[in-house]
Amino acid sequence: MPYGFNGKWLRVNLSTGSLRIEEVPEELYREYLGGRGIAAYVLFKELKPGTDPLSPGNKLVFATSVITGTPVPGVNRIVVAAKSPLTGTYGESEAGGFFAPELKNSGFDVVIVEGASEKPVYLWIKDGRAELRDATRLWGLTTKETVEEIKKELGEPLARIGCIGPAGEKLVRFANIMFENRYAAGRGGLGAVMGSKNLKAIAVRATGKTVKFYDEKKLVEIVKWFNDNWKKQPGAVSRSEYGTAELITPFDKDGILPTLNFRGGSFKEAFKVSGEVLNKTILVSKSGCFACPIRCKRDVKTSEPYETDPSYGGPEYETIVSFGPLCGVSDLNVIAKANQICNAYGVDTISAGVAVAFAMELFDKGVLTPEDTGGLEVRFGDGNGALRLLEMIVKREGFGDVLAEGVRRAAEKIGRGAEKYAMHVKSREIPMHEPRGKVGVGLQYALSPIGADHMQAPHDATYERITQHLTALGLTRPVNRLMLDHEKVKAVYYGMLWWGLEDCMGVCKFVFTPHSAGVLTPNHMVEIVNAATGWGMSLWSLMKASERAFNLARAFNVREGFKREEDVLPPRFFEELESGSRKGQRIKKEEFDKAVKLFYEIAGWDEEGRPTPGKLYELGLDYVVAELYKG
Amino acid sequence: MPYGFNGKWLRVNLSTGSLRIEEVPEELYREYLGGRGIAAYVLFKELKPGTDPLSPGNKLVFATSVITGTPVPGVNRIVVAAKSPLTGTYGESEAGGFFAPELKNSGFDVVIVEGASEKPVYLWIKDGRAELRDATRLWGLTTKETVEEIKKELGEPLARIGCIGPAGEKLVRFANIMFENRYAAGRGGLGAVMGSKNLKAIAVRATGKTVKFYDEKKLVEIVKWFNDNWKKQPGAVSRSEYGTAELITPFDKDGILPTLNFRGGSFKEAFKVSGEVLNKTILVSKSGCFACPIRCKRDVKTSEPYETDPSYGGPEYETIVSFGPLCGVSDLNVIAKANQICNAYGVDTISAGVAVAFAMELFDKGVLTPEDTGGLEVRFGDGNGALRLLEMIVKREGFGDVLAEGVRRAAEKIGRGAEKYAMHVKSREIPMHEPRGKVGVGLQYALSPIGADHMQAPHDATYERITQHLTALGLTRPVNRLMLDHEKVKAVYYGMLWWGLEDCMGVCKFVFTPHSAGVLTPNHMVEIVNAATGWGMSLWSLMKASERAFNLARAFNVREGFKREEDVLPPRFFEELESGSRKGQRIKKEEFDKAVKLFYEIAGWDEEGRPTPGKLYELGLDYVVAELYKG
Repeated sequence: MPYGFNGKWLRVNLSTGSLRIEEVPEELYREYLGGRGIAAYVLFKELKPGTDPLSPGNKLVFATSVITGTPVPGVNRIVVAAKSPLTGTYGESEAGGFFAPELKNSGFDVVIVEGASEKPVYLWIKDGRAELRDATRLWGLTTKETVEEIKKELGEPLARIGCIGPAGEKLVRFANIMFENRYAAGRGGLGAVMGSKNLKAIAVRATGKTVKFYDEKKLVEIVKWFNDNWKKQPGAVSRSEYGTAELITPFDKDGILPTLNFRGGSFKEAFKVSGEVLNKTILVSKSGCFACPIRCKRDVKTSEPYETDPSYGGPEYETIVSFGPLCGVSDLNVIAKANQICNAYGVDTISAGVAVAFAMELFDKGVLTPEDTGGLEVRFGDGNGALRLLEMIVKREGFGDVLAEGVRRAAEKIGRGAEKYAMHVKSREIPMHEPRGKVGVGLQYALSPIGADHMQAPHDATYERITQHLTALGLTRPVNRLMLDHEKVKAVYYGMLWWGLEDCMGVCKFVFTPHSAGVLTPNHMVEIVNAATGWGMSLWSLMKASERAFNLARAFNVREGFKREEDVLPPRFFEELESGSRKGQRIKKEEFDKAVKLFYEIAGWDEEGRPTPGKLYELGLDYVVAELYKG
Repeated sequence: MPYGFNGKWLRVNLSTGSLRIEEVPEELYREYLGGRGIAAYVLFKELKPGTDPLSPGNKLVFATSVITGTPVPGVNRIVVAAKSPLTGTYGESEAGGFFAPELKNSGFDVVIVEGASEKPVYLWIKDGRAELRDATRLWGLTTKETVEEIKKELGEPLARIGCIGPAGEKLVRFANIMFENRYAAGRGGLGAVMGSKNLKAIAVRATGKTVKFYDEKKLVEIVKWFNDNWKKQPGAVSRSEYGTAELITPFDKDGILPTLNFRGGSFKEAFKVSGEVLNKTILVSKSGCFACPIRCKRDVKTSEPYETDPSYGGPEYETIVSFGPLCGVSDLNVIAKANQICNAYGVDTISAGVAVAFAMELFDKGVLTPEDTGGLEVRFGDGNGALRLLEMIVKREGFGDVLAEGVRRAAEKIGRGAEKYAMHVKSREIPMHEPRGKVGVGLQYALSPIGADHMQAPHDATYERITQHLTALGLTRPVNRLMLDHEKVKAVYYGMLWWGLEDCMGVCKFVFTPHSAGVLTPNHMVEIVNAATGWGMSLWSLMKASERAFNLARAFNVREGFKREEDVLPPRFFEELESGSRKGQRIKKEEFDKAVKLFYEIAGWDEEGRPTPGKLYELGLDYVVAELYKG
């Protein structure tokens, strides 16, 4: 009897309606662990190169890990992956909440959805059984309506439900998957993949537990330690008190608050959208994820004309900035409303906010005029306009249909030099972290396997002072946040392996050090995995497993034709920041190019950015060598 | 106040007679840990490329580690390094016993000896003070006489002493350094380096402790666990019962017992020299190292005509085979005598035995005749002849003077195709492990930074079944011992990092798993380091530190001009084994060359075997990049 996993995957073919349970050997879990590891394995092995992400040939993977379902705080995220319709790369997004433990306790570690249904369906899993059910009457409903209707239909008020909203149905390229209409697998358009498959939702319910852990006592000890100690960590306390919005005030002071489509690093009304003000104005209560006492999530309530429903959850840092400072908007009510529209219709708040800010700048620069948009003109600072445009995007109405393709495709369609203002890497919109003030973040934007993403490695400030936790990660020297020297490149690489490990494990990046709110350490991770599985892993073998997943995702992209030229940043980041305490700061292009080259060499990739056979063989990826180096 | 180290190095310049204490910052210990890490750092930084190893420009480093002096069994080895006069590469050898903890408790983590004295001297260190003392009257004495005389002269019966015998004085290229005349830093001719410096001995005495450990309680717990558990490990019990000689019977059956200068894999009289027979005949008592209850070392006594003194220690596996089966000798008394001659005169038993077997084969093949050797003719099986030839080697008398240069140089001098029978890699004689029956050992012979060595990575059988301890090392798939596929290359590479870590730590390779006698695990290593230092290291950061040391040693060799062509095996291993159960077995040259190439790629080395800038920068070896890639 294995520890830590069911050894069962559910494979659902929507074209044929078949549901198959597959038994999976322990070896696979040892090498791939879960989450990103397993998802990348499935997608590399099973997807035909060149598959249209919105065709039945794409596959959608929901993966837990060998530690999902343990009582440890922060170990609860569901990893969802498919070929991304936004980027064309390996696409992955993770959501917190309660879905992952529920799925695992239902008896399945992984669900793979393939093909496409002729009519809308949803998948219902309970205690080891699964069925497809008609979702025709759910089509067109918002995420909250969907969740409520499914629970009612099933008579299962405790079911956990991941679903798409109307935006996913309409194949908005950055449509997301919402869990309990408030936890988002937000990025990369995985909701559009569900939409393309006519899959409205996945509902799961587990009435018991199906997985045994090797050393339950040890796990309980770790939980106890966590509960006894997290309040001693000021970062965690502050995260609990203000949520992720705690970052707004310090980032603004520091000149790294993305403002006006990344033109500036400071927003004169930043305080109005800060965590402090949020707490005093619209906050109703705090909420959180499975087993976690920190409760960094928020419920908010606003009233007319921007009335919101607390059950959609409040805006987090990324959402506040992308619809706030990035659009020049300083009204928290507007931002909360934007957040709700995104969550109800099911789109990524980052991509959506960046798309709106992109349009605003185009109006500013005269690239767009009301003639292009059916009369609409949205300027920086226009909160009402932003909401109107957002509604057009999520419904694919008018000019919204252009922006629903993401800023890169929109810029191509618009022409007239619009690409200059499209803030993306590999078509994925830039999140709310200004790389000119923390240049390692720029490197992770460029080298992330999923396009621009800020959750690929701890950010630069982490490396400015060597701590115990950096020591565990093999980082021995402090590095300045503005430098892009070889120490920084190494730090970003090791950091990507560490955060990549967290994505293999389905772990919250706030909960583990070296995040500033972190409580558990890398060495705790080893303890948790071993208590769950009894395998005797080490941080070495875990980091190597993460490197395996990272190279698999990279290899996926190489196979899709991605080349060195695409490991870049938008040109704006090589120009001077226009406002804030770091005004004038820019990333030097030559330094950046050198850093990318060095990253390749450190990663064991060739000059084109392809993993070498040596690196692939080291990681046991023989089948990747066979495919990338055939002929 | 630091934990785990003194932060003080003693630098002795024998040319000027100056003794200097250097304060060393904590950062250096964090990156290099001790042992090989620190020794390679010093030699790469301080040695001029092309330095004659026997000139005053060479430096001799004695290094402890951050865990030396803890009460944990097996953590007691002194690492000695210099540019090797045998190989011209980075040279390193380690010795067990009691010297390392004594040195560290005396207040110095490291002793660096540079220059050369005009007349013989020895170094005396006690409780933080050091002086050079005249050794003129010690010159010419055996190791035991030297130890006794120094103790008497100092009035310090408890001093721990490392010294050379007459062979070191005479610059025999495989002269060793003997500690307490029974623990040998045996390989690579470091004794000749001492001889060339006119340094007869280093004596140390510590009357107290100078180093604090972070968590002494945890260390005591580990010791207790060890003492409670080691007898549950059959491999450790057998190692305790029979010493390393336990291997002879099973290796003979398995067809991997080096016989007749590596022509065969089985010796018909193997049983006569086995651990079982040794126990019943010449064994007087068991002995061991600091804090270790296993006591795998032996004291033996033999009588006329091969009378020996138990205080020199008994022959270990390597010695028994090199003077036994390898020379066709089956008399344990002869072997015990050869062992004593080696230990008294101070030469490596492996190189010495191989040199004798080499001569025997040359007589056999008619390449040598008595005319070449002043009348001596030594044939396989001639124990008396072997002892006579050995005495000529250690005294550099007659033909012994030729063999005292090592088999590669001897073959060059002899000519007439003698090189064909010279069993070495990079001039260092092959130890008693037959790579045709465990091919990964062949790979470590070729890729070891110090020339042929069997202590660079766990041997092939280790990888045939995946255990908890291999899991910690990131090895997920069993590999056949006869295969040299990519899984094996990876296993050898990871194995080299793990055993290399043990050489950074000054740890006994028998005591830790995955050695068959191992008790402590890789995850114990992490616990020990953290209990000693409080740093919060992980197996990831420790393996990376080992990789740093490994690449430093490699870079040293690259700088000295070593190239891909020298990462080879003697041609005999590509020919068929002539006897034993694996008769007919050979290593396929093409497979081997492919494996070396793959090893380079996995290691992050270019096609010439040079560490790439990326790998060096990753490891924080900026100064190596600057030197290897200048101009």
